[in-house]
Amino acid sequence: MPRTVSSTTVGIVGGGPAGLMLSHLLHVAGIESVVIDLRTRDEIEHTHRAGILERDSVRLLVESGVSDRVLREGHEHSGIDLRFGGVSHRIDFQGLVGASTWLYPQTDVFVDLADARLRDGGDVRFGVTETSVVDVTSDRPGLLFTDADGVAHEVRCDVLVGADGSRSMTRLSVAGRKEYFRQYPFAWFGILCEAPPSAPLLIYTRSDRGFALISQRTDRVQRMYFQCSPEEAVDDWPEDRIWSELQARLAGEDGFTLKEGRIFEKTVLPFRSYVCEPMRHGNLLLAGDAAHTVPPTGAKGLNLALADVRVLAEVLERALRKNDRSALDDYTERALARVWRAQHFSYWMTTMLHSIEESSDFDVRRQLGELDAVAGSRAGATYLAEGYTGWPHG
Amino acid sequence: MPRTVSSTTVGIVGGGPAGLMLSHLLHVAGIESVVIDLRTRDEIEHTHRAGILERDSVRLLVESGVSDRVLREGHEHSGIDLRFGGVSHRIDFQGLVGASTWLYPQTDVFVDLADARLRDGGDVRFGVTETSVVDVTSDRPGLLFTDADGVAHEVRCDVLVGADGSRSMTRLSVAGRKEYFRQYPFAWFGILCEAPPSAPLLIYTRSDRGFALISQRTDRVQRMYFQCSPEEAVDDWPEDRIWSELQARLAGEDGFTLKEGRIFEKTVLPFRSYVCEPMRHGNLLLAGDAAHTVPPTGAKGLNLALADVRVLAEVLERALRKNDRSALDDYTERALARVWRAQHFSYWMTTMLHSIEESSDFDVRRQLGELDAVAGSRAGATYLAEGYTGWPHG
Repeated sequence: MPRTVSSTTVGIVGGGPAGLMLSHLLHVAGIESVVIDLRTRDEIEHTHRAGILERDSVRLLVESGVSDRVLREGHEHSGIDLRFGGVSHRIDFQGLVGASTWLYPQTDVFVDLADARLRDGGDVRFGVTETSVVDVTSDRPGLLFTDADGVAHEVRCDVLVGADGSRSMTRLSVAGRKEYFRQYPFAWFGILCEAPPSAPLLIYTRSDRGFALISQRTDRVQRMYFQCSPEEAVDDWPEDRIWSELQARLAGEDGFTLKEGRIFEKTVLPFRSYVCEPMRHGNLLLAGDAAHTVPPTGAKGLNLALADVRVLAEVLERALRKNDRSALDDYTERALARVWRAQHFSYWMTTMLHSIEESSDFDVRRQLGELDAVAGSRAGATYLAEGYTGWPHG
Repeated sequence: MPRTVSSTTVGIVGGGPAGLMLSHLLHVAGIESVVIDLRTRDEIEHTHRAGILERDSVRLLVESGVSDRVLREGHEHSGIDLRFGGVSHRIDFQGLVGASTWLYPQTDVFVDLADARLRDGGDVRFGVTETSVVDVTSDRPGLLFTDADGVAHEVRCDVLVGADGSRSMTRLSVAGRKEYFRQYPFAWFGILCEAPPSAPLLIYTRSDRGFALISQRTDRVQRMYFQCSPEEAVDDWPEDRIWSELQARLAGEDGFTLKEGRIFEKTVLPFRSYVCEPMRHGNLLLAGDAAHTVPPTGAKGLNLALADVRVLAEVLERALRKNDRSALDDYTERALARVWRAQHFSYWMTTMLHSIEESSDFDVRRQLGELDAVAGSRAGATYLAEGYTGWPHG
């Protein structure tokens, strides 16, 4: 079957938040792009993902003109609770760093971005098949795919961007890449349940039974997680067992209890860290999960993806307006500086709060000593608040 | 041989800084004590040990009337340098937390304390033998020893204190104690050399070859350390090899070099963490290294010992003046709260700066991400400065 050949300025593989936000920012800068994704819009809209946005992620959505719905429908969180030894310790983001995070599910971010691209006449093709990228080191790299109607396309571009998630296909074209991995010996058991919120803010809990995170979603639906084995089978966990485990991990001298309700989703989330370096090969650049994965404890995944494309939009604009590809040279370094900080932050939050099976009693007490030091020191709490609400974009 | 029987209020085993400072503080409070030590005063005076005093350790020496020599002969350090990626990053203690540390060798602290006890007529017996503690759960525990002249003594006391260092004998009398250990897979190779200072402040260096610490001692004698294997043999390290290793670890884009000189002491310092809980059994209380050991990276050992005896003097005064032994009940909890913070601080400084042999490339980059985050954030640097200069005594 003959291919329909066309051209654009930037070809973007992946129509998740990273790809769509990049396409939007390029549009604002007057740069044309095409976005493709293997999934249908409906599939993406119904994949539940994390939902904590850093201050600058919210700003990016609002100030770049995507939507201000996050401000109207999202929930501003002025802090989190660190709970250990059965006592909650408020980390007051507003008081410490004058910033908040926003609870706003990733699917809503996606909907806002997809709607904005539609509104602005963006070229986004969901549900494509047989995608590949070719000639990435040439001046006219190509994006090959078959669209949802079965038509084969070849789109020639100035630059290609791989924003195709943690199982990225485009990444494989980054010849000579170095890959950094870290496995963690645990996973998260995540549930969605029909219940009112148990607390106004997220509760990050360290207990002798393991970590638990009490999150929120809406007034009637809540998200909760507890540390489990990577081999945990969801079927081994009937509702009663889940609630008694969560209640036990949250129990404390203040008599705190969770509000229970029907559990309608159970998932085991894997836990790993990954970084690909460089994030560029020739005229192919990677962004978001395609280049790096963080464990969920720091709530950094989506935020890192948005930070990447903010930098990427800027270097692409410079490179394309002045036809000076050298502007792309510092993308990897700028993006990775933040990525490694975020990797550390995620590792830190993880190791400070989780039970590590091979931990000695010494390490358990030291862990409590650290939580004491962080929660008991304005500087320690501020350092955590800075990381959680996000370092300034740059 | 018959024993000479006598009595005192507090019997103290160990005439290092912890034991002597306690004896001094008790004296100030009008409480009599006897201190014994297996070593001669001369032996203790010639054992080189660390020499960084926290702000409150200096205050304790000066304000309790031991001596103000530290202010005249010690060197005030307003910060440290964290060096990584070949660049030094100043952690400005004064600017961040309004505090300094003082470079003042532990042997000088000992001399000041021993002199003060002599000046004030304290009963300190160095060079004793055959020491033991008996009847620690009774109302009149006993201290048995043979003095330097060969006379056997039995001193009956209201309270006994074990301040007999990391190989404590008194600790063995704490029945039912729980012991927490952590081994580290490395050690420090320490040298003393005849050279002028290479830098005004301590330099804590992370390099791909391992950690190094550049310290000072006097205008003509310097102390330096580099991370090595616990099995390292000092004889395998002639001067040339030591200097080339140290220079390589400090090398950087700023062209920094160490000032070399004749090396006249070489030692391999073991690295471990230890905590004994509780720090009290009946009328026997432990203080300092007898109850806990920290790795040297955080410079916390001597400071923790002084913090212990400050709390201990206070609870002893309450217990003895009002003849209310329940005042002793909260010693362990108060002392250990600080100990576990310090254990964590020492662990943190250690893991942030040392090469861990089994580290993946991921962990090495994450470590650099952490150093970046700490040095690049006022809150992060403040959190470090608080820990290094010492949390307020309490």
